[in-house]
Formats: sequence, structure tokens, C-alpha cells
Amino acid sequence: MSGNSFGKLFTVTTFGESHGLALGCIVDGCPPGIALSEADLQADLDRRKPGTSRHTTQRREPDQVRILSGVFDGKTTGTPIGLLIENTDQRSKDYSNIADTFRPAHADYVYSHKYGFRDYRGGGRSSARETAMRVAAGAVAKKVLAEKGVQVRGYLSQLGPIAIDQSRFDWEQVEQNAFFSPDAKAASEMEVYMDALRKEGNSIGARISVQATGVPVGLGEPVFDRLDADIAHALMSINAVKGVEIGDGFAVVNQKGTEHRDEMTPGGFLSNHAGGILGGISTGQTIEAHIALKPTSSLRLPGRSINAAGEEIEVVTKGRHDPCVGIRATPIAESMMAIVLLDHLLRHRGQNADVESVLPMLGSAES
Amino acid sequence: MSGNSFGKLFTVTTFGESHGLALGCIVDGCPPGIALSEADLQADLDRRKPGTSRHTTQRREPDQVRILSGVFDGKTTGTPIGLLIENTDQRSKDYSNIADTFRPAHADYVYSHKYGFRDYRGGGRSSARETAMRVAAGAVAKKVLAEKGVQVRGYLSQLGPIAIDQSRFDWEQVEQNAFFSPDAKAASEMEVYMDALRKEGNSIGARISVQATGVPVGLGEPVFDRLDADIAHALMSINAVKGVEIGDGFAVVNQKGTEHRDEMTPGGFLSNHAGGILGGISTGQTIEAHIALKPTSSLRLPGRSINAAGEEIEVVTKGRHDPCVGIRATPIAESMMAIVLLDHLLRHRGQNADVESVLPMLGSAES
Amino acid sequence: MSGNSFGKLFTVTTFGESHGLALGCIVDGCPPGIALSEADLQADLDRRKPGTSRHTTQRREPDQVRILSGVFDGKTTGTPIGLLIENTDQRSKDYSNIADTFRPAHADYVYSHKYGFRDYRGGGRSSARETAMRVAAGAVAKKVLAEKGVQVRGYLSQLGPIAIDQSRFDWEQVEQNAFFSPDAKAASEMEVYMDALRKEGNSIGARISVQATGVPVGLGEPVFDRLDADIAHALMSINAVKGVEIGDGFAVVNQKGTEHRDEMTPGGFLSNHAGGILGGISTGQTIEAHIALKPTSSLRLPGRSINAAGEEIEVVTKGRHDPCVGIRATPIAESMMAIVLLDHLLRHRGQNADVESVLPMLGSAES
Amino acid sequence: MSGNSFGKLFTVTTFGESHGLALGCIVDGCPPGIALSEADLQADLDRRKPGTSRHTTQRREPDQVRILSGVFDGKTTGTPIGLLIENTDQRSKDYSNIADTFRPAHADYVYSHKYGFRDYRGGGRSSARETAMRVAAGAVAKKVLAEKGVQVRGYLSQLGPIAIDQSRFDWEQVEQNAFFSPDAKAASEMEVYMDALRKEGNSIGARISVQATGVPVGLGEPVFDRLDADIAHALMSINAVKGVEIGDGFAVVNQKGTEHRDEMTPGGFLSNHAGGILGGISTGQTIEAHIALKPTSSLRLPGRSINAAGEEIEVVTKGRHDPCVGIRATPIAESMMAIVLLDHLLRHRGQNADVESVLPMLGSAES
Repeated sequence: MSGNSFGKLFTVTTFGESHGLALGCIVDGCPPGIALSEADLQADLDRRKPGTSRHTTQRREPDQVRILSGVFDGKTTGTPIGLLIENTDQRSKDYSNIADTFRPAHADYVYSHKYGFRDYRGGGRSSARETAMRVAAGAVAKKVLAEKGVQVRGYLSQLGPIAIDQSRFDWEQVEQNAFFSPDAKAASEMEVYMDALRKEGNSIGARISVQATGVPVGLGEPVFDRLDADIAHALMSINAVKGVEIGDGFAVVNQKGTEHRDEMTPGGFLSNHAGGILGGISTGQTIEAHIALKPTSSLRLPGRSINAAGEEIEVVTKGRHDPCVGIRATPIAESMMAIVLLDHLLRHRGQNADVESVLPMLGSAES
Repeated sequence: MSGNSFGKLFTVTTFGESHGLALGCIVDGCPPGIALSEADLQADLDRRKPGTSRHTTQRREPDQVRILSGVFDGKTTGTPIGLLIENTDQRSKDYSNIADTFRPAHADYVYSHKYGFRDYRGGGRSSARETAMRVAAGAVAKKVLAEKGVQVRGYLSQLGPIAIDQSRFDWEQVEQNAFFSPDAKAASEMEVYMDALRKEGNSIGARISVQATGVPVGLGEPVFDRLDADIAHALMSINAVKGVEIGDGFAVVNQKGTEHRDEMTPGGFLSNHAGGILGGISTGQTIEAHIALKPTSSLRLPGRSINAAGEEIEVVTKGRHDPCVGIRATPIAESMMAIVLLDHLLRHRGQNADVESVLPMLGSAES
Repeated sequence: MSGNSFGKLFTVTTFGESHGLALGCIVDGCPPGIALSEADLQADLDRRKPGTSRHTTQRREPDQVRILSGVFDGKTTGTPIGLLIENTDQRSKDYSNIADTFRPAHADYVYSHKYGFRDYRGGGRSSARETAMRVAAGAVAKKVLAEKGVQVRGYLSQLGPIAIDQSRFDWEQVEQNAFFSPDAKAASEMEVYMDALRKEGNSIGARISVQATGVPVGLGEPVFDRLDADIAHALMSINAVKGVEIGDGFAVVNQKGTEHRDEMTPGGFLSNHAGGILGGISTGQTIEAHIALKPTSSLRLPGRSINAAGEEIEVVTKGRHDPCVGIRATPIAESMMAIVLLDHLLRHRGQNADVESVLPMLGSAES
Repeated sequence: MSGNSFGKLFTVTTFGESHGLALGCIVDGCPPGIALSEADLQADLDRRKPGTSRHTTQRREPDQVRILSGVFDGKTTGTPIGLLIENTDQRSKDYSNIADTFRPAHADYVYSHKYGFRDYRGGGRSSARETAMRVAAGAVAKKVLAEKGVQVRGYLSQLGPIAIDQSRFDWEQVEQNAFFSPDAKAASEMEVYMDALRKEGNSIGARISVQATGVPVGLGEPVFDRLDADIAHALMSINAVKGVEIGDGFAVVNQKGTEHRDEMTPGGFLSNHAGGILGGISTGQTIEAHIALKPTSSLRLPGRSINAAGEEIEVVTKGRHDPCVGIRATPIAESMMAIVLLDHLLRHRGQNADVESVLPMLGSAES
């Protein structure tokens, strides 16, 4: 399709600009008979929505989602699910001044070249606001996966120089602070760091990690639609992401085979350097992925750029922005992971439903 | 499609197992009128083929490709291009002993679960041998891209502990050593390292980098088919790859906005931290991607595993294997990058052919 | 994708049930810079909408469409166009009684089996109401095609026993009567026929014809995505359609080669038995397609059926229905044809943009 | 993909020109564990192959197929199945004279415009020879469907003026004559008719019918990927096909609702005017489709045309051709039907595997 759809059997297609009338999404291929309500989607949307702490943009959007189709008597019908979120707090005037400006490290320049002209209000389609519908669609996927015993969870593993300490890792903490940090101590350091950064008028990058547990063995289609390849596609498609790792990721560059290979015993895998995927197919262990998000380029600090006339200009971005786009990225990353997993669950089921495996099933070593 | 196809308008579909009769590929969507011969494909195939140095598997495969269709009077006709490589040096007996064995960190276990049974000879479809057809298809893409002034090149940037020194970077060197290293001194260190590793019976990971120059502004389809997302999909689909970076990649986690944003001047971009892609669309700068490849798990050193009966066993992999699969991965990574770029070139052309950009066109700062 | 999307580069994805909150659609891949307003879409929606004459269902739906995204300053931006129509006149009570009933020749029985349960209100997703969004999306395609000099028009060529007389064919007439008949005399006969049919409580089939003029030579992708194959797919996907013909259609069964072949002269083709398509590719002549629509099965006259318990029942369908679904099908057929043509125009442009044809270009004989 | 692939989960991609080195195909998505041998494919290939009677082209092609991958120990592995048929009897010299000629009603003119130049040998890719691989792929689908109790069969229902007599319908006869006619008497009339036609140097059209029995309720994805829409796409993509009907097809134009609707009783459907498909979904009754094939345009009788220079010429086609392409089309139509059914079986299974239907299951009235 034309770029705004993702998934083969579980397909998500989105529309909407930062300052348009609304954001929308069609979730096609959702299995029938699944209990689904707007509340199910709202929970994750609220985790992503702006203005929940002083560390994110102060744009006020309730991000209230409406289910327009595909659900009857509280259950999915198997027909496409139409979702809609109206934009309420647009303030387009904030942006009129940048109509002819190319903000450095933004999509202004490339959109203008690709399409000839662009909706310059708040970045239009290139705004991270687009990700709201990914979260809504991802919540649908999570609901279906939950019925299969699959759980997808994410957390912020590093914010600028502050990395979490695995010894203090606590899933409970993740929803207790503004950063989705599983490490309470790191979270308070981040508070201090972000306050200083905001005063400075600068922004910072972050690292997000996502895990999926309960994933059955066998998801993923060799050779191009490997599960890890589709996860990489899904996660790299999130705004500001510049890197994706599965399992040990780039650390494998300096690992030896004896160190990396996850040995197996009748009791289970002895390690999970692979991040739950071998040969592009899920092993039944926990699936682990990590992404790097760049610092936002909407800064109060002046930057050099050019305008549509090619003249040198100085850009100072006012308006409301996230000093660290990574902070709100955790639910987005979870959503994309969930969408990929459900899509592959359905694909695998379609093609291999007759397979009766009599082979030993190994649990994940760490579970 | 079902996992063995890649690309929307320029589509590559492959088949073939490590020890089957042949490997094949259909390249669909190649523009007509392009001069193409088997020699064009053979050059890259020879760069990838095994047994060219003592540092790769000693399996002897000429990897002689035949063009069976889609080319007439030396030019592409616009119809699908059928490519075939016969397997010659199979030695299946090497593998009969592992029919019921799950080699640790191999796809044996997951394939057996997914499909119920598997072609165990040399890993069957999960073997890196499958990548030969990617290289053949990529060579077709490179040929077309070359006519558009787009060049795709790769190199090995790190082998285990040995990273190249940018101050010694020399494209000329890349084809002068067995490692595709642009740093001659690093290459000789790698020789020593690999000899020791081979004696030890172990394997090691590697990092490969790919660049594309001459890419026009505007390639990439927001939001899910972003150029970087498709590149991530393509590169992560290569055997043994565990991580993908665009531009600065994971380094952005600890970068500030003022440091990361690539400022623009009438003279061009002042830096390229973005790796030539903003908002998922090419900027006209050099596109830069990096991948991490895990160490192969086919080792002489014994490893713990189980068999199909679930009994604990010790696995010692004999046969012929690459102690560093990264060594032969450079042409594969180039090929996948080329396939993605050509596919997006055609897609962009189809949808935006009428766009007449009167905007300033910036060169890449470093070009 | 999962069944609710159509088109490769110009992609239409729809959602919505007959008695849900709204119908919606995402038009992805529309070229940028095209002037587009809601009025452009409303014109065709009004041609399709119910209750415009006594010969169609009396359900009152304004079918007012809203453009929610993808258009800025009155022009398409190249980003997905979100379209929405709210349902206003639902009267679900009309249907509560058929919750456990399988109406003969309706989708009730198959939906119940496929999905386990169904939205029984007015046929839910299987209702012809779904076609409203096809018309809205088709209107977008028509607007783009018009800029390329391509015009798509349709008409009703037969209603039950009343076929139009080619000697009285007048395009002007098509919009002058309730039937889209190009033959005024036939139209008045249809008036009489339909009045009698309505009294009788029965329904009737119809034949619709669609033409596209100004189509350039070369659209269509061999071998499976032939232009005629995609047109057949598109038209057969319209509710109640049971047959599709291109050009002479089934008449070719008893034609000889000398009679069927469209001879060429420097002045143009001497005939158009092929309907403007050879080898699956447009010839530059007028493209002609015809479809057969079955009589609706929602009748006042009792029919034998069963209920969800498998018990024999008698079905009498009250409520508001079209005694001839074919009457409102003309704009729907035009829309699907337009969507296919634009999709192929973009695909051809993407893959063959470099082709510089120096060959003779023939006009259509009859143009 | 780019036109040479068909199917979503069960995907067939073909390559090959009439006079190229070989024809090939990749069957992707075939479920694992199915017993499959070259003999399984050869049976149908032999039914289609040329030169088996004096009524088809005298080109001698053994059409010997080789399975190059995807099958191990006699069973499918779930990996792509590579198929190859070498061309043996090409006689390209027969065609050198038409390099600059546009044969009327052939694809010469449109291919030349679309691609800028063409492989003129025997029609290149536009030759019906391409359909050999459809038959090979279809045979794979038939084998899988057979395990599900689904049988796909076809027959020639009309050749020019000679239609079969339903009262003499006998499936046994279909393989007993050169025409796939289920009516022995009609077959002998066809012998006479074809002999006269051959002397005359002319060609004739035909009508082919395809049936599928044992199809479960529920196959087909509303709204665009309806089962009938995909069947129409598949059948219209066959060379020379100009019309497709499902069930009563064009006869519905003059049917009333009371006549057309297939009433249901606890004992089953009382009729099958719908051809086994309602709302785009299979009903469990026999699926019935019919196609119209045009007369071939390769005639000894001279026809008016132009050459690449636009000059008027007279075309007399020598070489070896089918005076009725419909004669060999039966196995091709069966194959396309089988491919569609298996693809939808897998899709339905993937998305609705959890549906536990407790509803009454009706048999087909005529079964």
C-alpha cells in the first residue's frame, strides 16, 4: 500500500495531521469476538498523551478516542475498526511564521521537496502527533494478544547520560514516574536533569526497551518477513528513532560464538542473548528490543537554516515541544511491537495451523 | 506476500535451500531498457561467494548465475527477471548426523516447531546461502541506480575488538583485502586475529557499514514505509543481524538537540548526524546505515543442547563454516540497501512525478 | 491487506456498517497539489444516495462527507485523505427481529459462520451502504484523472427486460432520469415497470456499463495485475454483482478471429471489440466494461429459510429497500473503475517513466 | 507486488517468455507436510501442454517440470517451492519477421508503447505459454485443497456455436476428448467444426466453466477481497478472457428476486443461483464460475495493421497457433480457481481460527 498501512493480516492504516481536524485509523483484520471498548484504548492513549507532566509538551489534548465501527454488543465483529480522535488544541497561529522556513533536522525541507508544498502547521503529517493512532491500534492488538497469554511491556532504559540500574529494575515503578523508568532512583535524577535542560532550552535523546512475554514458538516468516525484521521496520518507523536492537544488539560485534550462543537444556534455554528470536522466528523466550530516539530539534536555542527562497536564516522554535521525545515513546514502541506480534500470530496460524508439534517445548531461561 | 518477497514496485522473491538443487530469484518491476548481463551480477556474487580466502567457509561454490528471462538483446524488457544458481558442492552427508539435533543458536529448533519438520541439510532455508540471490537481485538494482547517479557501497567497520580507524579510511582498500576493510592496517590485524580464532575453534561478531551517495531528495513514504524503516527491515532480514543504525544511531541517546541537528546553509548541510534521512525521507545527503552481525554458532567447541526427543546432548559442529559471517556480509548489505532505494525511487516517481520543485537543493556537507 | 483495502499505489481502505455511527475511508497515495474540496466528492455521493426517487430505498441519508486530513489550502498534500460520513437515519428497531434469522440470498448465514456472530442491523458490513465510501474515494480518483484528460462515465444499459436502444443513446439523458439511462424512452418504460414491480413486492436485476476515455496507452501490469483483471476484481467486489465483461465480453464465445480482431490503420483502430485492453494493457481506445447486478433479496414476498437454531422459518423483509440495486450502482461502478485506472497510472509512471516511446500513437476508432 | 505475483498467503510469482530459456515460478506460502512430487504437477501440465491433438498448436513442448526447492523427503517444508520448465521447441526464426510488426489484437502494440521495446519472439511474456507455470502452481494448490476435501474441476461448456447439452453432462467424458467437453456428442461436433475452421484458417472463441466442491462456509474477505472478486481477478488475468460470471452471471439481469434468491431449509439450500458465494463469502455450496475466451488473433487470413514506422501493412500470421485458445484453457482456469481458494482458506484460518460456529451447517442443494 502507500506508506500509511502496516501489517499483512492485522493491518493498521492511519491518517491525520498535527493541526488537522482529526486523527484517524482503520484497524483491519482484528479477529472477531474479542471484548473491546473505548476504555481499553484510552488507557494507553492517556499514557502517551501530552501535558501529563512538566517534562512534556504543554499542548493540551484529551486524545479522546471513539470507536466508529467493527464493534457490536461490546465485541469485535471481524470487520474493520474505525477509530477517531478530534484535535482540540491546535493554535495554528504558533506556526504561521514558519510557512517558508525549513527548521533544521525537521521534515520541512524534505516534505517540501517530495510533495511540492506542505501543511506547515506543527509539522503536519510528520508530527509525532501521528503516533496517537498507533497507540490506539496497538491497544487493540494488546487486547487480542492478552487472550493468547502474550504481554507486551516497555520502559525507558536511558535518558541522555542517565541509564537505569538493572539491580534496581522494578516493573511496578514504570507507571509511577513521568519517564516510564523502572528505576526509581534514576527517575529522580532524570527529574533534575530535565529541569535543567528545559531552562537551558535544549533537548536530549533517549533509549527505550520493549519486551514481549508469552510469545509462542514459531512466529515469523523467513526470509524477508522475519519477526525481527518486521519489528525493526515497525520500531524504526516511529518518529525520531535512529537505531534498533534485538537482544544483545550491537554488543554482539565483540562477542564470541561461545559467549553469544544460547545453550539449551531439557530445563530450558540457559540465556537469551538472541532476544527471543532465532533465524527470524520466535523461540518462546522473552522477545527483547531496544530503540534509540534522537533529541527533538524544536529548540529555543537559535539554529542556522535557510528559507524557501534559499536565504540564510536563524531559526528559533517557540511553541510547545517535548524536550525529550523519548519520554512519551514507551507506549508507542509497545504498540508497534504488539501490532507486529499479532500480525505474525495470524499469519503463522493461517499457514501452519495443521502443524502438530510433538517436539519438546522449552521455556525461557529467565522466566 | 508470504515472507520470501521484498519490495513494492521493485520486488525480489527468492527460493532455495543450502543443499537443495538450486537457488533462484524473481526480480519483478525492473524498469525496461537497462543494459544487463550475467557478468553484471557475477561481479557482486564473486565478492560474496565462499572459499575466496582462508577466513571464510571452504565450501566451493562457483555461484554461477544464469538469467532465464526478462532480458532481450542485452536489455531488460520490463518483464520479470528469472535468476538461477545451481548448488554444486553440497556434501549432505556432513549433516545427516544432525537430523534430530537442535544446534544452539541456530534455527533448527524454531523451524522444527514452526513447520513440524525441516530440511536439516546445512540449515536448509535458514542457511546464509540464501543470501546469494539477494546479492544477484541487488546487483540488478545497483545497475539501475547507477543510471540515476546513485552509488551504494559498503565496508566492514569492526571485526570483534578491531575497529577501523577513520583517519586511515580508504575506499580503494575495501576490495584489496579479505575483510572489505577500508583500513589496511586494521585488515592485517584482522588476519592475525582470525587465524588465532580459527585455531581456537571459535567465532566472532562484526559491524558492517553501508553508504549510498547521489540519492535524490524525497525518497521514502511516511509514515510506516519511511525510507529508514524499510532499510531497517531490509538489513535486519539478513542472517545474523541483531542491530541496525541510521546515521549516528545509538549515539543519539546521549546527544543534545544542538549537537544532533544538522544545520543548513545556502551552501549545504553543515553535518549529517541524521544519516541522510529526515522524517523518513531522503535529504539528498549521503545515506549511512550500520549493522551488527552476531558470531556464527557453528563451532568446533562443544555446546549444550537437546535433541528432538528432548534429551540433553553435546553439540560439536564439524563441516565447513564461516568463523565470522560478517566478513561476507558487505555485498549482502549493499544489495539490500540498493533494493530498498530503487523500490522507493520507483514509488516516489509514480506518486509525485508531477511535482516541480522550485526549492533550493542542498548538497551534502561532506560531498 | 485484510480485505478492506484496494489499490497498490492509490489505496482505498474503508470501514463502517449500515447502522453503525459512521462510514469512513482513507485514501492513501493521492498525488499532491490537486485542488480538492468536499463539494467535489458530494456531487457523486448525491448521485448514489438513497431516497432521491420513489424507485430507491426511502431511507433518508444526506451522506454529507467531511474531509478530515490530507488537504491543505484547498489542495491535496500527498498525505492520506481521511473521509467521514455520519449515519443519521438508522432505525435499528426495523432489524431487531432478524437477529436470529438468516434472510435467503443475504450474507446473514455466511457472516454468522465466518465470524461466529454478526452485526445484524441492516446487514451490517455487508450492506450496500458500504459503497458510499467507494463513491467518495472514486470522486478523488476522478478529480486526479480529469487533470490527465481521463474521463470515467457510466450508465444503466438494461433493467430486467428493458434494454436501452443504442440508436437513442444520449449521454445528456443519463443524469436526466432516475435510472442513469442514456435512452429517454427506455427510462419511461422503466418507470412503469418499477411501479408495477414495487406493487408486486418483488425486485429485479440490472446491467450497468462503464466507459473510460482519454486513457493513455500502456496502463496495466502483466500478468496477474492486468488492467482488465484489476477492473474485474474491482467491479465484482461491488455488492450484488455476478458478472463482469470487458469489451464484447461473452459475445466473443461465438466470434471468429477475423470478426473479433481490431484491425489497425495509420488512422487508428477500426473497431474496439477488445474494449480498449489488449494483453491486459490499455490500447488508448475507450475502455468498456459491463456488469450484471442481481435482484435484491429483501422482499415483502415471503421466502423459506432457517433461523440460528436451524428451524424452518418464513422470511418477509419489511423496512426500506431498493427494488433494483442496480439503479444506484452506476456511480459506484464509475468509482471503482476510476480507482483502478489511477492506481495503474501511478504504477506505470513509477516503473516506466523513462520510456520514451517514438512509436505511432493510434486514436480510438470511434473517437 | 509488481504484477507477476498472485495471492496473499499462498503466493504465486512467475517469470518466463515464450521463447526464453525457461519458464519458472515460486510458490510461496504452501503449508508444510504435504506430500508433493513432480508427478503431481506433471499430470495437469500434460492436460494443458500443446500438440496433444490436431486441434491445438503443433509446437512440441514436453513441459517437464522440476521442483528445485521447498520439498524434502517428499513433503513440502513450508519454504518457497521453486519450479522450472525449460523451453525446448522455440524456433525463434518463425518470428524474426514480425519484429517491427504490430499484429492486430495482439499485445505487440501495447507492449512496445509500455516498455519502449519488446521481446517479439512468439509474443514474449504476453504468450499463453506463460500459463504453464500457473498450471504447475495450481497443481500444488489442488494437492493441498484435496487434503481439505476441496475438489476443483473444469470443463468446456461452449465452443463457438456448439454448446454442451446439460442432459448429456458426464464428468467422465471431460478427459476422454480433446476439448474437455462433458458432452460426448458435442465433442464430436466440435471435431468437425474445428477441422473446417482450421482449413478456413480462422479461429473461434469458447466458454469454460469451473466448479469447486467441498469448499467450507466462510471463505472470502469483505469488502474488496471478496471470494468472487478474487476469482474474477484470477480468471480475467488468463490470456484471452473477456468475461467472468459467478453462478447465474449475466442471466441475473432479467431475474426477479423471488426467482434468484436461494431459499434455505433445514435440509439445505434449495437452489444455487448464487454459485456458492453470498456477500463475497462461500456458502458451502458448489462454487461455479464461467469465463469467455476470445478467438486467437494469430490467423493465416490477412489482416490490416501498421508497423513500428506507422506504415500500413498486411499481417498474415504463420507459425504454430491454437485455432481455439479455449481448448487448452480448462486446466488453467482450474488452477487459478484453486490458487484463490487455498489463499482464502489460509487467510480465513489465520483470522478466524478461534471462531467456534455452533450454527446449522447446510449442504448444497444439488450435492
